[in-house]
Amino acid sequence: MEKQIVILQKMIMTLLQEKKYPSLRDILVTMNPSDIAGIFDELDADRIPLLFRLLPKELAAETFVEMEPDPQELLIRGFSDSELKEVVDELYVDDAVDLIEEMPANVVRRILAQADPDTRKTINELLRYPENSAGSIMTTEYVDLRPEMTVGESILRIRRTGVDKETIYTCYVTKNRTLIGLVTVKDLLLAPDDDTPIKDIMETHMIAVGTHTDQEEVARRFAKYNFLAMPVVDNENRLVGIVTFDDAMDVMQEEATEDMEIMGGMSPSEKTYTRASVWDLFKQRIPWLMLLMVSSTFTSMIITGFETALAAQVALTAFIPMLMGTGGNSGSQSSVTVIRALSLGELELRDLPRVVWKEIRTAVCCGVALAAACFVKILLIDRLLLGNTDVSVLVAMVVCVTMAITILLAKVVGCVLPMAAKKLGLDPAVMASPFIATIVDALSLLVYFGVAKGLLHI
Amino acid sequence: MEKQIVILQKMIMTLLQEKKYPSLRDILVTMNPSDIAGIFDELDADRIPLLFRLLPKELAAETFVEMEPDPQELLIRGFSDSELKEVVDELYVDDAVDLIEEMPANVVRRILAQADPDTRKTINELLRYPENSAGSIMTTEYVDLRPEMTVGESILRIRRTGVDKETIYTCYVTKNRTLIGLVTVKDLLLAPDDDTPIKDIMETHMIAVGTHTDQEEVARRFAKYNFLAMPVVDNENRLVGIVTFDDAMDVMQEEATEDMEIMGGMSPSEKTYTRASVWDLFKQRIPWLMLLMVSSTFTSMIITGFETALAAQVALTAFIPMLMGTGGNSGSQSSVTVIRALSLGELELRDLPRVVWKEIRTAVCCGVALAAACFVKILLIDRLLLGNTDVSVLVAMVVCVTMAITILLAKVVGCVLPMAAKKLGLDPAVMASPFIATIVDALSLLVYFGVAKGLLHI
Repeated sequence: MEKQIVILQKMIMTLLQEKKYPSLRDILVTMNPSDIAGIFDELDADRIPLLFRLLPKELAAETFVEMEPDPQELLIRGFSDSELKEVVDELYVDDAVDLIEEMPANVVRRILAQADPDTRKTINELLRYPENSAGSIMTTEYVDLRPEMTVGESILRIRRTGVDKETIYTCYVTKNRTLIGLVTVKDLLLAPDDDTPIKDIMETHMIAVGTHTDQEEVARRFAKYNFLAMPVVDNENRLVGIVTFDDAMDVMQEEATEDMEIMGGMSPSEKTYTRASVWDLFKQRIPWLMLLMVSSTFTSMIITGFETALAAQVALTAFIPMLMGTGGNSGSQSSVTVIRALSLGELELRDLPRVVWKEIRTAVCCGVALAAACFVKILLIDRLLLGNTDVSVLVAMVVCVTMAITILLAKVVGCVLPMAAKKLGLDPAVMASPFIATIVDALSLLVYFGVAKGLLHI
Repeated sequence: MEKQIVILQKMIMTLLQEKKYPSLRDILVTMNPSDIAGIFDELDADRIPLLFRLLPKELAAETFVEMEPDPQELLIRGFSDSELKEVVDELYVDDAVDLIEEMPANVVRRILAQADPDTRKTINELLRYPENSAGSIMTTEYVDLRPEMTVGESILRIRRTGVDKETIYTCYVTKNRTLIGLVTVKDLLLAPDDDTPIKDIMETHMIAVGTHTDQEEVARRFAKYNFLAMPVVDNENRLVGIVTFDDAMDVMQEEATEDMEIMGGMSPSEKTYTRASVWDLFKQRIPWLMLLMVSSTFTSMIITGFETALAAQVALTAFIPMLMGTGGNSGSQSSVTVIRALSLGELELRDLPRVVWKEIRTAVCCGVALAAACFVKILLIDRLLLGNTDVSVLVAMVVCVTMAITILLAKVVGCVLPMAAKKLGLDPAVMASPFIATIVDALSLLVYFGVAKGLLHI
């Protein structure tokens, strides 16, 4: 399927080059706005306005919403005021807000100037909600009903006003702006009788979110409750907007990407890889590399402190990377698992003792298995196969005991730190591999030299 | 909000202990099935059937679907045949399939025996689709319409049959079972005239998926196109089922979790952390730890090969962890970014040259900045502050040159390997931190000793 789109894109480029505009239009109208937007994202700047003007009005607006900010900005700069007004009028307010958040100030001023006064007011209100809050991703275009309306009247109302609503399938029942219930179009269609009042069929036990609820929490509830839309209420339980499932899906993806970026030792970025410049990538990556580089001073210090011991038993140095690696990997397994479970709401802070106990038992199993395997490996591969006679049975024992202890420490650190971060109000994802590895590196070296001193008397 | 649920749970436990069943029932009917299911997941085994029997029939079935497999199995084993039939009759077929996939064989036989023959046939068909395919997550309960039906007839059909359908909002138009179009309930309600034939208002340019399309691809399309449901067709373009957005959301979450688990050096697991036993966690984690432990033999060999050089310049050993750590972090930054972009469909294999070029430039920026900072750090902290006179300017230069080269290699390896994995049909997530770090560890040591030999003449 994706291949078909690539083929279509090529065909469109060719037709554009050959200026076969009527055929181009015929093809474009069969396509989905997202796929057309994908073509704009790849197009040379000078062709973007040309292709855009070929689209019928409604499709043009739908395509515009799906584009990346760069072609959007380019188009707006080229639009006449009336062209801009046409596009702005077709946008849902939440899409208008998203657009405005991406555009430079002078473009924003032009967009707001073309929006009608009511829309402009709503946009300005939505812009005031904190970033990543339910208020910032909601739309105000929903169907609201009154409790005393009948099913028939409600259907009529949907027919009359539905065309401008982002979803008509869940309608909200309000009384003096307070949210008191919801009905779905399914309920309306399957209602036994058109004269039934809404208050008799509405669902009054609702899950709503506040305007300041974190968008990650909103997405989590969508995943849990399988709703098409979720009402957003203010402190007085007045309905101020709704979040629709498609926006929740986007949030879910963004949040997973953000967690992965942080776990990979990067600052999260809103730009896709293709859009990010080298400078963007540099800024995203260098702070963590610097921090981790400087913090590795501790490992250097520890090694320097044991230089004489290492010089006495040269074979010990060779196992440092393996011990640190195994420790780091064990720790990151635990931290990744816990971070994800926290982010999906499967774990809460009060589960900490249970988690630590589970990790300790897992660490003991992993530690014993790995230490035993390592012992065999060292004697068979390093000593016999590679003929490194420096590696005595005692050295192998030092390495394996260190390994078992390191794994235990790493798994405990790996599960405790993300939960501690959450407790402190930080993002648990910060406590993933890079950070854990740095701590575990230092711990494993300390254990290593401690055990070596004890067993080898150096 | 989550706190409210915890409070409710506590209240329910108390009422259960005090056997206040009528009040218990009054509270339960106000709750969402997902939240009630959450209570069952925490309940002692002997109380589960008791609480379940308090629920009204429909709510009981809805709650049952949302439970974890353990309480589900416990309940089924306690059900009489007629109780089981009541629950099975209320299940959508895709939920029935999910249930059956989790249950042991003897429970499965009982479930199938209670399903009516048509449902049993459908369930058996769905069970034959490969795991993680569109066929395995679709439902067969959709509304289908004929092209010659009118809007009015269609609405009537929805009213008559809609109660058993998983979604009524997108209806599919078929002719001899072939999918030829779709209409939404919004289109039907907003249609100018009840006598309009469906073929005049239906959308004929559809995005459909095949029965064997990977569920990850299905979820990706949901995120891209914002559909409520997506049709699933067989090789002859016959409509065989639909996937609804809520299942796509679950897939999205599962796939992100799976990617994170693999990136964290674990085999993916279908069990949540809370449900997974120590043995499950052990099995998930030990293979990777073993593999990575054994593969670190290379780093040991490299160090052993340079033992005499290290003995001559003891200061060099102290910087090994920092170099390997920085290399590993740089590589994992690139690999995580590329893995995620591949998984979201932002990057394709053909983008490889562009990606490598971007990573090289980023690596040069990061490498120069980091090497410069490292040079200052070594001379200021390690030499002056910590008074380690072994660390000469020349040693600092060796470390910094190595660092710059390692970062370059790490970033190239980090972006190439995930794409190579994809090319080979493997999961790109395999090529994340743990794997990359092991390779980069070896590379950085080789570079380190090479540079040391060249500059220090050892």
